[in-house]
Amino acid sequence: MDTKQALPRFFQRVAFVIVMLTMHIDLHAQQPSHPNIIIFLVDDMGWEDTSVPFSGSVTANNKKYNTPNMERLAKGGLKFTDAYAAPVCTPTRVSLITGMNVAHHGVTNWTSPFKNTNSDAKDSLYDPADWNVNGFTPVAGVNKAVHATALPQLLKNAGYFTIHVGKAHWGPQGTPGASPYNVGFVVNISGHAAGHPQSYLSEDNYGNLPGKNAPQSVPDLEQYYQSGTFLTEALTREAIRSLEYPISRKQPFFLNFGHYAVHVPLMADKRYYQKYLDRGLDSSEAKYASLIEGMDKSLGDILDFVDKKGIRNNTVILFLTDNGGLALTPPRGGTHLTHNAPLKAGKGSVYEGGIRVPFIIQYPPLVKAGGTTQHPVIVEDVFPGMLELAGVRNYRPIQKVDGKSFVPVLKKPALPDTARVLLWHYPNNWQNRDIPGTNYFSALRKGNWKLVYSQRNNTAELYDLSKDLGEEKDLSAIYPDKTMELVNLLGKQLKDFNAPMPVNKRTGKQLPYPGDGVNK
Amino acid sequence: MDTKQALPRFFQRVAFVIVMLTMHIDLHAQQPSHPNIIIFLVDDMGWEDTSVPFSGSVTANNKKYNTPNMERLAKGGLKFTDAYAAPVCTPTRVSLITGMNVAHHGVTNWTSPFKNTNSDAKDSLYDPADWNVNGFTPVAGVNKAVHATALPQLLKNAGYFTIHVGKAHWGPQGTPGASPYNVGFVVNISGHAAGHPQSYLSEDNYGNLPGKNAPQSVPDLEQYYQSGTFLTEALTREAIRSLEYPISRKQPFFLNFGHYAVHVPLMADKRYYQKYLDRGLDSSEAKYASLIEGMDKSLGDILDFVDKKGIRNNTVILFLTDNGGLALTPPRGGTHLTHNAPLKAGKGSVYEGGIRVPFIIQYPPLVKAGGTTQHPVIVEDVFPGMLELAGVRNYRPIQKVDGKSFVPVLKKPALPDTARVLLWHYPNNWQNRDIPGTNYFSALRKGNWKLVYSQRNNTAELYDLSKDLGEEKDLSAIYPDKTMELVNLLGKQLKDFNAPMPVNKRTGKQLPYPGDGVNK
Repeated sequence: MDTKQALPRFFQRVAFVIVMLTMHIDLHAQQPSHPNIIIFLVDDMGWEDTSVPFSGSVTANNKKYNTPNMERLAKGGLKFTDAYAAPVCTPTRVSLITGMNVAHHGVTNWTSPFKNTNSDAKDSLYDPADWNVNGFTPVAGVNKAVHATALPQLLKNAGYFTIHVGKAHWGPQGTPGASPYNVGFVVNISGHAAGHPQSYLSEDNYGNLPGKNAPQSVPDLEQYYQSGTFLTEALTREAIRSLEYPISRKQPFFLNFGHYAVHVPLMADKRYYQKYLDRGLDSSEAKYASLIEGMDKSLGDILDFVDKKGIRNNTVILFLTDNGGLALTPPRGGTHLTHNAPLKAGKGSVYEGGIRVPFIIQYPPLVKAGGTTQHPVIVEDVFPGMLELAGVRNYRPIQKVDGKSFVPVLKKPALPDTARVLLWHYPNNWQNRDIPGTNYFSALRKGNWKLVYSQRNNTAELYDLSKDLGEEKDLSAIYPDKTMELVNLLGKQLKDFNAPMPVNKRTGKQLPYPGDGVNK
Repeated sequence: MDTKQALPRFFQRVAFVIVMLTMHIDLHAQQPSHPNIIIFLVDDMGWEDTSVPFSGSVTANNKKYNTPNMERLAKGGLKFTDAYAAPVCTPTRVSLITGMNVAHHGVTNWTSPFKNTNSDAKDSLYDPADWNVNGFTPVAGVNKAVHATALPQLLKNAGYFTIHVGKAHWGPQGTPGASPYNVGFVVNISGHAAGHPQSYLSEDNYGNLPGKNAPQSVPDLEQYYQSGTFLTEALTREAIRSLEYPISRKQPFFLNFGHYAVHVPLMADKRYYQKYLDRGLDSSEAKYASLIEGMDKSLGDILDFVDKKGIRNNTVILFLTDNGGLALTPPRGGTHLTHNAPLKAGKGSVYEGGIRVPFIIQYPPLVKAGGTTQHPVIVEDVFPGMLELAGVRNYRPIQKVDGKSFVPVLKKPALPDTARVLLWHYPNNWQNRDIPGTNYFSALRKGNWKLVYSQRNNTAELYDLSKDLGEEKDLSAIYPDKTMELVNLLGKQLKDFNAPMPVNKRTGKQLPYPGDGVNK
């Protein structure tokens, strides 16, 4: 045998084996190019409902709450101080899976569990806007629903094992969007048409006691009935169990973990409740704080599981919430509308208290641990951002995507704000309660300018967020040109989106778009 | 270059590529060695509730029903005339996933939706047997439950994508067995702790109308609420949708499709109901026949889907039912206890009407189309049979498996009956109604001899099934030795299994095992 020839051929063969094995791994195993994705989405939790300070200093509200695992995530990842969602939940959830702005997808309010049913509060002066009351649909032909290609579907198509656990709330009963299976998930546990749990308690069978159900009865958890397991904990166990399968097969996964916590009904998570009573919180606030800490324990369990499985470096974890914290008393305790201080107002409002949310991303290969960014992001950015991280390219969704990938910010947290325009649109009547910035409002942020626009009054306020985070000092009289520039920009964008507007009952006409003059 | 050496090396390399590719396919793609498996399990459907004649001739009952897709399956596969299940449902379902005989696993009656709750009818003379009222458990330490390794878990471990759709009924609320996810399924749709649907109607939200739920409310079908979709149809669509995923990934699948049909409540499947009224059936029987035909349409949809996907030659399809047909009036119409004629009695009974069930296997590579076998099989045989077909070897379940693989029969339908002993054990009070062969009965079949044993009376009847399918002529007085031989065999097997027996309230003692004398 000619060893001179044999040796290079031996290496050729070794190289070939390596190439084959690499191809094999590339197709079937986890790769930095196809990281696992966990979206940990909390319901109705405000920007300040955490011991992680998002405002730059530790506030009184930060001190109320105990979220060591959010702190741990922030230490391991990147904290976004200027992250936004919609003022209420379904709009955020639809934006997240479609990449569309709320004014574009037209699901401007929370969807009723019932088909073709407007969830707007009754109003003597205005008829509800013609919004997409049937939420998201993955197939054409569903009336009053936005037909789009969903993020989980694209990830599934790309080889991801897609799991939904917990609150879904993408569409009403009797429509495809009611089932996470139609949204692109391979597995669904406890996701359905409802936006909150009837009960967090296993003693109530999570709302399934015989003869006492509601559309909000939480499905799929019968093994936990009467076991003393709080809903937050049951969902966490289900999420972790469901991850075992793709991990055992070395298949990249996408877990969309939508906690029902901390939405009303405020119920004590007894593991933590007494501690907050002892700290002097009233019973409502102690319940709320116990819901927060139970949620945080769940996050910790997920982080522990990811570490235990050795997949930390190959897993993107995004923590966010779906709107600002509920600031109404009752059901909240404490002082009315202070729950998101230093932010103004709360859930339902286009002021910062209703839309600015906690947002943290951990992904060690790309994200330097412990950083903070002031770069503004909004929930529709999750769609292109996650697809980019997942290595999914040249996808062709039905819809035009409005979101912008946050990946450049992950790489460079000090990336300057290029004065991108962020938009909120709420042509709805939430609760018939007089809360600043809710009921028929739109808003726009560009750089540090924040415009708050009343659709009813056709009036605008202007704030400089860099100096006035609490939106206390309206600058519109001082900067009338800037105000009109932003009003017109808002009007143009809403018109471009053909965004629904409320209808004046007296005239039968839609309220005018911003900048289009008065229609009273 | 030395071409004499290069050429063999080229072939070596080609061979290497082939080896690598083959390994790749073997691990990740469908192979005849890992066929897909569909178990199509119908609830409470009797041996004669079909236009497929299982008795050798077309009976009056066969003529009542219209099941063209069962006929199609039988034409494409092998029909078992002597296939058996337990007299009620949970025992059958636990035997199927564990391979254990009912007397062995001890789940002798249907499980209540509620933990630690005996489902036996009240009785003034006997206390219920100490049976496993908490059903199946995949983990140790659950009181009154059989701890075993489940068929879907073994298939999942072997690389199968395991899907459960429809009725589960392996364990009560508050126990692991309540969730098909704990039984080894990757996906579960509509399976839970209950044994029947509260309603088949989307108009009733399948039992989920607000304030009107029960443990039998069917979960996971909100997208079909108020849509006019009958439960049987909704489950079929879900089953077919759920198969798309493993097929798209070329991963072998196991679909366990447990229809809620044709269990009570008897509700008209309007697609077929009028036809049966027009044929002169009373309304109850027309409802029942419509449930049967709706179920058959579902089978046809599955068969069409399998054909459309081109996986017919790579898919094992087993059709069976979980016990004999319900023969009580009401809720059935017609004449009491005639519904399984020519078989005696019905659901709940150890006479043939309660335990002999339709059973058809289609698997083209192995099973000659259109055949019939008289070889007796019993539901625990599905466990080793399916694992053998799936190419799963050297599995190590916790439990000792009683079932015998039916694969030799598939290969050779004329395989002689080796006089294997089949066993039934029902130490329970089903309904406090006087139905022949139910409430505290055991039975045994060996060859064509059938022994029917009353636990209360310590008496035995003997039938020759080859001459007396209807069990009308008790031969025990004519063949006392054979009778005693079989009584003693039955007693020995029950003792070996430590099978639970009812308790005489007066003495506080368990009734004696067969052959152990009187305990009155």
